[in-house]
Amino acid sequence: MSKYVFGVDIGGTTVKLGLFDVEGNVLDKWEIPTRTEEAGSKILPDIAESIRGKIREKGMTEEEVVGVGVGAPGPVNSDGVIRMAVNLGWGTFSIKETLENILGLPVMAGNDANVAALGEMWKGSGQGSNDLIAVTLGTGVGGGIITGGRVLTGVAGGGGEIGHIHVEDAETESCNCGNKGCMEQYASATGITRLANRKLAESQRESILRGGEVSAKTVFDAVKQKDALAMEVAEEFGKYLGDGLSVIAGVVNPDTIVIGGGVSKAGEVLIDYIKPHYDKNVFHGSRDVRFVLATLGNDAGIYGAAKLVLDAEKK
Amino acid sequence: MSKYVFGVDIGGTTVKLGLFDVEGNVLDKWEIPTRTEEAGSKILPDIAESIRGKIREKGMTEEEVVGVGVGAPGPVNSDGVIRMAVNLGWGTFSIKETLENILGLPVMAGNDANVAALGEMWKGSGQGSNDLIAVTLGTGVGGGIITGGRVLTGVAGGGGEIGHIHVEDAETESCNCGNKGCMEQYASATGITRLANRKLAESQRESILRGGEVSAKTVFDAVKQKDALAMEVAEEFGKYLGDGLSVIAGVVNPDTIVIGGGVSKAGEVLIDYIKPHYDKNVFHGSRDVRFVLATLGNDAGIYGAAKLVLDAEKK
Repeated sequence: MSKYVFGVDIGGTTVKLGLFDVEGNVLDKWEIPTRTEEAGSKILPDIAESIRGKIREKGMTEEEVVGVGVGAPGPVNSDGVIRMAVNLGWGTFSIKETLENILGLPVMAGNDANVAALGEMWKGSGQGSNDLIAVTLGTGVGGGIITGGRVLTGVAGGGGEIGHIHVEDAETESCNCGNKGCMEQYASATGITRLANRKLAESQRESILRGGEVSAKTVFDAVKQKDALAMEVAEEFGKYLGDGLSVIAGVVNPDTIVIGGGVSKAGEVLIDYIKPHYDKNVFHGSRDVRFVLATLGNDAGIYGAAKLVLDAEKK
Repeated sequence: MSKYVFGVDIGGTTVKLGLFDVEGNVLDKWEIPTRTEEAGSKILPDIAESIRGKIREKGMTEEEVVGVGVGAPGPVNSDGVIRMAVNLGWGTFSIKETLENILGLPVMAGNDANVAALGEMWKGSGQGSNDLIAVTLGTGVGGGIITGGRVLTGVAGGGGEIGHIHVEDAETESCNCGNKGCMEQYASATGITRLANRKLAESQRESILRGGEVSAKTVFDAVKQKDALAMEVAEEFGKYLGDGLSVIAGVVNPDTIVIGGGVSKAGEVLIDYIKPHYDKNVFHGSRDVRFVLATLGNDAGIYGAAKLVLDAEKK
């Protein structure tokens, strides 16, 4: 009988791996380096080798393993095909088929942010929900959407790309994606820093932020000390993210919105700045949403990857 | 063996019904009045009676009927529970259970706009797609989203409520929903008329529209005659809808966007005004979307309702 499942989260520098029982209890977790040389051709063989080693180490048999779930940093469609994961050196190919061929175990793959959303729904702060939006506020803004208990993948794996929805016509600087006025330019750690630096340059007003290091962390630390300039920055951040989330919620009608990523370490104060804007503009059918902070941190990906396999097994 | 399926589309004044084979060929279609008196308590019994009559008339047996799909004008969750369909006089109850009890046949229910989207995907201009956005530009703006071949319902049936996403901070007039700056205020027939009247009042500029009837139809007729003022109205309409659709596409990553409803009778010119704005702001993963005009017209609902039952049967 199948008792175990592996969850794998491929990042640009390390691959996180987890061994779970089918109830979602983590039995072991570890990391290996992501070897991006030679067009990333070593990444999946390294993962296969690491999983085989763990199976031997634990005295498990392959028959006891339901399969391996993989989250990867790029668009992954529902067949497990990734399209251009530039920072891994990857082009377009099937993660599912490739890893199944190497490993001889069932594999499911998804976009890392989508998979992390599934993890938060399964074992994190989204528990109990089948319809949620997860936003990851880090260097960029990532997103994952679960609708009816399933990851919203879209036709080519671009579902849940919240970071690049257009929120500002007047923006003059370009986003990394090439467009102007993307959510990521205002709501990521980088975006918050940019908003703060812009505001500091506009005038000579006093602020705790002036002269020191300006980052999403120092901005929200200053907000907690009631620094007026920092609070204006937080207000701008909250307006862009709250308005944007109200639009997304109007489309997907969730019951839960999970806020995660490095910026979310600022705590509940984030939600205090987002929610009023959300409430003002959201359609009444999505007004009763629960805003929560993510709780799984960097482990959301391995949990969600494991869940991806268990869900596929059930079908 | 089950050979037939009924599709029902409940409107405020008439109920449309269709009898289909399981391949989706329409064998018969007809209408009955929607009796909204007595809190709409006669609507489902009337539908049941009409379907029973049709079964007798055609010499079919109940065993030959897969089931009955119903589209209704209000939020309907995936269990078939409708919440407050005000214009039918309905409160909150299960359409599925209620009609199953009266009729003794399997029933599935969904929101009318969502069901119409499924119809366009199955037998209309969305054929071949599993991931599409359908927008209905009528008196209001309705929407339906299909993701991975399934209707995006959301937690309470509010999925795809495109008409009430927030698109304009500066709006001073209220939308019917109570918010300000909803998509519906700019992209519906009513919205286009409002934009045109506003622009006519702003100046004394010459326009074909001046003095005559102003409607979505006359505006787009004037656009086809290169009327400068009408073209500016079309440009505003296209910007709101194109930008909004780019956001929705960023979230759901579709391959097809279907434009339907009364306003879509203006033809391809609509798409000419929407697409440049969409292309400018959409995330590159959703740039290759196909824009098409809806082809099923008022029959999209009965087709989609029938499909809802067939899909449920397959699970």
